[in-house]
Order: sequence, then structure tokens, then C-alpha cells
Amino acid sequence: MGESRPFVERLSHSIETLGHALCAGLDPWWDMMPAEVTAGRDTLSEKAAACREYCVAVIDQLVGVVGVVKPQSAYFEQYGSAGVAAFHDVARYARSKGLLVIGDVKRGDIGSTASAYAQSLFRPDPADGCPVFDAVTVNPFFGSDGVKPFLEQAQKTNSGVFLLLRTSNPSSAELQELLIDGRPMYAHLADLIAGWVEELEEPTKYSLAGVVVGATQEKVIEELRHRLPRCWFLMPGVGAQGAGADACAAATDSGGEGALVTVARGLLFPWRSKENLEAPENWREAIAASAREWAVAASSVRCDR
Amino acid sequence: MGESRPFVERLSHSIETLGHALCAGLDPWWDMMPAEVTAGRDTLSEKAAACREYCVAVIDQLVGVVGVVKPQSAYFEQYGSAGVAAFHDVARYARSKGLLVIGDVKRGDIGSTASAYAQSLFRPDPADGCPVFDAVTVNPFFGSDGVKPFLEQAQKTNSGVFLLLRTSNPSSAELQELLIDGRPMYAHLADLIAGWVEELEEPTKYSLAGVVVGATQEKVIEELRHRLPRCWFLMPGVGAQGAGADACAAATDSGGEGALVTVARGLLFPWRSKENLEAPENWREAIAASAREWAVAASSVRCDR
Repeated sequence: MGESRPFVERLSHSIETLGHALCAGLDPWWDMMPAEVTAGRDTLSEKAAACREYCVAVIDQLVGVVGVVKPQSAYFEQYGSAGVAAFHDVARYARSKGLLVIGDVKRGDIGSTASAYAQSLFRPDPADGCPVFDAVTVNPFFGSDGVKPFLEQAQKTNSGVFLLLRTSNPSSAELQELLIDGRPMYAHLADLIAGWVEELEEPTKYSLAGVVVGATQEKVIEELRHRLPRCWFLMPGVGAQGAGADACAAATDSGGEGALVTVARGLLFPWRSKENLEAPENWREAIAASAREWAVAASSVRCDR
Repeated sequence: MGESRPFVERLSHSIETLGHALCAGLDPWWDMMPAEVTAGRDTLSEKAAACREYCVAVIDQLVGVVGVVKPQSAYFEQYGSAGVAAFHDVARYARSKGLLVIGDVKRGDIGSTASAYAQSLFRPDPADGCPVFDAVTVNPFFGSDGVKPFLEQAQKTNSGVFLLLRTSNPSSAELQELLIDGRPMYAHLADLIAGWVEELEEPTKYSLAGVVVGATQEKVIEELRHRLPRCWFLMPGVGAQGAGADACAAATDSGGEGALVTVARGLLFPWRSKENLEAPENWREAIAASAREWAVAASSVRCDR
């Protein structure tokens, strides 16, 4: 069982409908959530319930404005098994509202263990026979035999995989830009990924195997797009991490597709600043307004190309 | 709150007591577990309960024979939130029996997300104020700012961290052995790790920051031991993955310490072969006997040095 259309087709459809490829990162930071949601919630299960509630409220504001969400596992897992249940509930809720869900889990392991991860992440949900995640993020440190179980399971279930390639964080160059015969490590990794994409033999323009490239890595985006013409780029780092949505334009194709403009804190907690974490009373409206603004920014990324 | 002694001291104490540094990987593969445990268990919670039961039964056989266990998160996570609860229960049970527990989670992310992971993995358990994991495994792909939150939280709670360095799987060379200025990537990563170890300024001989080096990577073990004299080596790949316990000898110091001989399938399912997965009726005794055999093998690794 699984979705009847490939992930990349569902993604294209969503973008056609809304006019942009904005992806909202769902990172429920405890200290930034409204007191209305967090107050008096002390146990792990209460905190997990608060994260679920907040994300559900956010998703309600996103419907019709944003087509893709990326819940970050860490912010749920931190509340133990109740948090993991909330993570799945949030994914399920987003799917029930017609959103595509990228589970940001960044798993990676040896082949047998990677299979166990892949089978569970893309397991058909009893509710509708489709996996709760349309796609997941994967860490490629183990090479082919750690990555292929995810690709194979994604292909079987019409799901997607985003492989970490050039991440958005400040220290990412320490390993990812080590020079090998004059070429940085990420370029060698891109070649490996291009090989994996080829082996999938997909009929679609884009591959189910996408990559994670930080929008903060401005210098390498164009080069990587050239090396990986068939990969969707999931581009975090927009907003709080410093990049503008326009940084993603270099990753789009001639039709304006190919780059998922990914905003988390900037969209989810638009009221936060160094001085102020406190949410306003009308936080729901603030998130809706912020989503509309980021959607406009993401639309122009698409049109400018 | 946390343990009162550093992880590496607890580890040394365990090894002194038992005479070896054997670590049992707890990977509850569904198809290899005894029918007595798995029969009639169809839902995710029932399967999670079976994994818990099996690991508890295994731990009962290990007490007094093996000092360290390494439950693998994937095999529990695959059963959803109930599986995650079982993962924590198994860790808690092992600790209650005096075993050290390495949570094999291989998490890794940007700094803020790594902090969320680290804080929850090393959160004091209400039962006794100590984290349920004595140490965890971490993927260093993000560089310093993805790794340091784990090291800092481990230092605060007297816990340990094992950083992936040279993994045991067949395709691991694809990234890890890329040659950079004539030196493989793992050697550069080892230099980074040596720097992180130095910054921790610990009074102990060994650092809380250890590394994961596959026992299957025979050619590089001695070189890495030389580069990282203060790191414990967590060495999977012994048994089912093809390496013998003796492959770990090159990672021990002059006192026979420094290498955790890590056996999972080989110890946990000693009856399995290509032809036969079925457990015998006396599977508990079979595991106990297998643990004793591997303990002898691990003891000679320590003494041969």
C-alpha cells in the first residue's frame, strides 16, 4: 500500500496550486510557545501534549497558504514516548489537511539498521494505507548501504528522501568542505548521490531522492544544482539562521521549481526577538500573517527565475 | 543531577570487575526472536512489548557476565511510541541491574536541535536522578556545533558520547576514506575529535568523548588509536558482521583498556544461521552460554596486549 502518485508529483501539484514551494519547519521550541499553551504543563506527557496542540494550531493557520511542513523529530522526541506519539499525530493531522509532510529525522546507520528505520518511517498508516511521512531526511555518512534501504522503501511507497549534503549550520564546512583532490567533500558526495539517483530509474523529471542544502551556503547552491539536476533541494536556514528566501533562487530550474524554501523559527514564532520571546495574545493571527508573508517571498523566488 | 563519577571511571570499574570490555548490542530483530516471545503479537504495542520482554530476558542472562549493553534505537523506534517507551524501559532495567547502557541513537543535527537531543538523552530519570543512558552514539556530519551540545551535556551529567568515525559497514569507505591531501577523511575527522577532546579539559585518563570504529576496519585501527590516545573505541562489527574479537586488540592500551568489543546478533541470537532462524527451546541458556564465550574472547583481547 502507499500513495498512488510519486512524492515529487504530489509536490509539484502542491506548488502549482499555491504558486510557491514554501516549507514550514515545525520546531516547537518550548520557551517560544505561547504561555497559553505551555502554562502548568510540567510532565513529559503534558509537554508533549502542548507541542501537539501548538503544531495543530499552527497547521490550522497554514492550510491554504503553505503546502509542505517539516516537523523536527528532536523537539518531540525530547518528551519521550509521548513526544514521539505527538510527532506522529502532528504528521497525521497535517496530512489530513492536505499538506505534504517531511519528517525531519536525519536517521542513518548500517544497512540492516537503516532498513529497520526505513520500513517504520514509510509504514502504511492503518487510517488510510499511506505512510504518515511523505518524505524524510537521511544522513549519508554510512555511504550506499546506509542510504539505499531508505531509497528502496521510498520507491515502494511513493515517498521521498532528502539526503544531507551541505547543511546550513556555521561549522558544517569542517567536514563537508574538506578538499579532496581540489574538490570539496560535498562535491564528491553529490557525485555519489547522482549515481544513486540514476540507479532508481524513475520516469519522473525529479527524483524521489532530494538533498538538504542550507540556504546559508550561497556559494555552492548553483554548483550543486548543476551537479544534481534531478534532485529537489530542501533548503533550511531561511529566516532565523540568516538567509533570505531569495538565496534559494539559484536552486530553481527554468520553470521555477526545485527549491523548497524552508522557514522554521521565522515563521513559527514571528514575535520573537533577542529581547522578547513572549507571544502576543493574537499569536494565531501573527503566525497566519507571517505564513502569508513568507509565501509571498517564496512565490517571488519561483517567479524571478 | 547525574552520576557522581565520570562515565569512563564507571566503565573502567566494570572492566576491572569482569576482566573484559565486552559490550552486548541489543538489537531485537523480529524474525530471530523466539516464537515464544513473538507469537500472536501483531500490533505495534504488542511488538514493542515483545522487544521489551526479550531484552529483559537477555539482560537477566548477561548480569555478572557482561558489563555494558548497547540497545539500538531503530529496532524499538520501528514500533512507534510504544517502541520508544520500551527502549527507555530496557535501558532503565539494564541500569537497575548494574549494567552500563550505551544508547545507540546516532543522532546529529544543527546546534539548536543537537541541544534538544542532548538534553533529553541525558535527562535525569525521576527514579534516581541519573540519565537512563550512560552514553550515546552521535553522528558528526554537522561538525563542531552539532557535536558540542552532546559533549557539554555529557560533561554536566557525567555521561559519555561515542562519535562515529570509521563505521563497520561495507560501503563506509565511500565517504570516510575519501583522500584529502593524501589523507583519508576519517583521519581529518580524528583530528577534529582530538581537538574537541582537548577542549573538554578532563582530569581522567580517558575522555568522555569516545569514537565508533568498526572492528571490520582492521587496517585503520592502530593508526586511529595512535591519533586518539584518550578515546575509548566502541567497536561494532564483531561476530555477524565478520570481525573476530581479536581485531579489537590493536585498539587497546598497554593496560588492555580502550576497546569495547561489541557483539550484537552473534551474542543475541547464537542459534541463527543462513538455514535456521528458529530459536531452540532453551534459548535463555543458549544466550547465557554465548555471552560467556564472547566474554572469554573479550578477556583474551585484554590480556594479549
